[in-house]
Amino acid sequence: MAGGGGTRFWPLSRKARPKQFLNLTGKDILVNETIDRLSGCIAAEDIFIVTNVTQAELTLQETKGRIRRDHVLAEPAARNTAACIGYAAMEILKKYGDGIMCILPSDAYIQKVDVYREVIEKAVRTAEETDSLVTIGITPTFPSTGYGYIKRVAKEEAVWYPVEEFVEKPDMETAKEYLADGNYLWNSGMFIWKASTILKKFEELLPDIYECLVKIGDAMGTEQEKEVLNEVYPVIPKISVDYGIMERSDDVVVLEGDFGWNDVGSYDALEVLYAPDENGNLQYGDCSLIDTENCICYAKDKLIATIGLKDVIVVETEDAVLVCPKDRAQDVKKITEKLEKDGKTEYL
Amino acid sequence: MAGGGGTRFWPLSRKARPKQFLNLTGKDILVNETIDRLSGCIAAEDIFIVTNVTQAELTLQETKGRIRRDHVLAEPAARNTAACIGYAAMEILKKYGDGIMCILPSDAYIQKVDVYREVIEKAVRTAEETDSLVTIGITPTFPSTGYGYIKRVAKEEAVWYPVEEFVEKPDMETAKEYLADGNYLWNSGMFIWKASTILKKFEELLPDIYECLVKIGDAMGTEQEKEVLNEVYPVIPKISVDYGIMERSDDVVVLEGDFGWNDVGSYDALEVLYAPDENGNLQYGDCSLIDTENCICYAKDKLIATIGLKDVIVVETEDAVLVCPKDRAQDVKKITEKLEKDGKTEYL
Repeated sequence: MAGGGGTRFWPLSRKARPKQFLNLTGKDILVNETIDRLSGCIAAEDIFIVTNVTQAELTLQETKGRIRRDHVLAEPAARNTAACIGYAAMEILKKYGDGIMCILPSDAYIQKVDVYREVIEKAVRTAEETDSLVTIGITPTFPSTGYGYIKRVAKEEAVWYPVEEFVEKPDMETAKEYLADGNYLWNSGMFIWKASTILKKFEELLPDIYECLVKIGDAMGTEQEKEVLNEVYPVIPKISVDYGIMERSDDVVVLEGDFGWNDVGSYDALEVLYAPDENGNLQYGDCSLIDTENCICYAKDKLIATIGLKDVIVVETEDAVLVCPKDRAQDVKKITEKLEKDGKTEYL
Repeated sequence: MAGGGGTRFWPLSRKARPKQFLNLTGKDILVNETIDRLSGCIAAEDIFIVTNVTQAELTLQETKGRIRRDHVLAEPAARNTAACIGYAAMEILKKYGDGIMCILPSDAYIQKVDVYREVIEKAVRTAEETDSLVTIGITPTFPSTGYGYIKRVAKEEAVWYPVEEFVEKPDMETAKEYLADGNYLWNSGMFIWKASTILKKFEELLPDIYECLVKIGDAMGTEQEKEVLNEVYPVIPKISVDYGIMERSDDVVVLEGDFGWNDVGSYDALEVLYAPDENGNLQYGDCSLIDTENCICYAKDKLIATIGLKDVIVVETEDAVLVCPKDRAQDVKKITEKLEKDGKTEYL
């Protein structure tokens, strides 16, 4: 899944170049890191990318031959994750008859790749053996209020656990209880299941969407494929797979993943990717900092000079400068909303 | 006087382009505002500019025909204000026999130009009639700890007052006392006197400098003029006219000036020049501010976007971005010192 609007890392990410195309790790852009991370675990020729139609060409270009052209599925409109996953499931069903799908966000960071691969392989086997909806829950390392949680059924240590419930982002007190409890895992948005299994779920729980998917599936491989997709896809009801299916199914199982996952949801996540210097600052590019602590300074073209700053994010890109305290990092998308409203679309 | 190192308004001002060349008012660069402000009061052909040798050409260019080429006096080295004023006095003595000199910093802001002109004219008459050292003290409008003060002898309202003493920048408590007292005025660095009178003071109080000035004066108009200047000027003792002469003379008189003066000493002074918007922000260029209060945002080429900032200065120029809380505005020069130390001289 490589969608997204490029709002949370503005001005680094843009509408036309969202987060998955950012090289935040210093190694490669996130989508390529996501693909390469699966090496030896899922064959490159078996990887599909579902993206927005406006980013399909960019995706092909930026992934530099990693992905087959016909494996880039271009959504004519953004209709949330249920539509995206249903579309991909239908494609797999039509192309291969059936198959285990691993649905992975293209823009997360994972520290321990070996552990990650092991968990993915176990998840694939679990999906094969149990034919249930498999998800990966991340071992929480701090009482996060920014993630949803998956409560697993407490039992002896096992490869997988039945899911008792999905819970929304908690307040701090609740998050602390979850952390202490030990049976709450972070919802990573990674899903593993048979294409046929998830499509049965659509039929049962989201029949309106299923009807659309069947129309799209029937046209696959015909001359009408694109026409039908363009007609049907934009009217698929917008719902996430979490709300639409996961939270309403009783055969969901979870595997625990303890592999240094981070969804890189906003600028403050960069502290996980990089080691701050002795003053707690992350510096990229040409920076000159005086009496500056725990700041993130990203300079593309110009020198960033600061005096007396604490817990502030300063980002300079080719046409914009963002300055914002770290505790407002989650609100960066408000800037893109304001720019949209003010008609300054050249900056989006 | 148009010297200065371009450190307090970095990155707007630079070593090669100090503050007097900044258009901070939105009308014209400060040096031209200073020249034009004298219109109808001092004839343009009687205006001289003393500047650094490296800025002489730029000064001629930027003043756009306002100043005669031979009226731009280029100091071969920066030797503080006593040298600068002595050099100009000698030039006037040699060129005109004698004359009243008005010594005015090139980079101050004055709101009420009519009042200013009246005060200058009165000061010229005072210098003519009394043959004393005349200075202009600014009516204080708040208990400033950033300016030196001139204490005048309390007496009936008059055109001029004898100066009782010059006092250093006070602490806040003392500044409040000065404001309440009514006989303390801000030291504006404006001086009015006869060239012959100040040169006599040099002879009496700063004989080493006087000796240098005589050598330079003797060479004026000869083929050796430049050679002697280059040889003698760089070894003139560095001292300010305040320390060297004003504070050591008992025939100093002061005129009160209440004309909205500001020395534009650092970024926070911009608030005097511009009316902040309803959130207390000063915006120049393309800015998009969310939950931002009492900030100064100066965007040259790029959009500046902020969220949740308070009392912060953000300045973007062609090659640098400065971010600094307002209460550190006085420390902007530390950045230039650090850049110098770090060898990043391209930004100076």
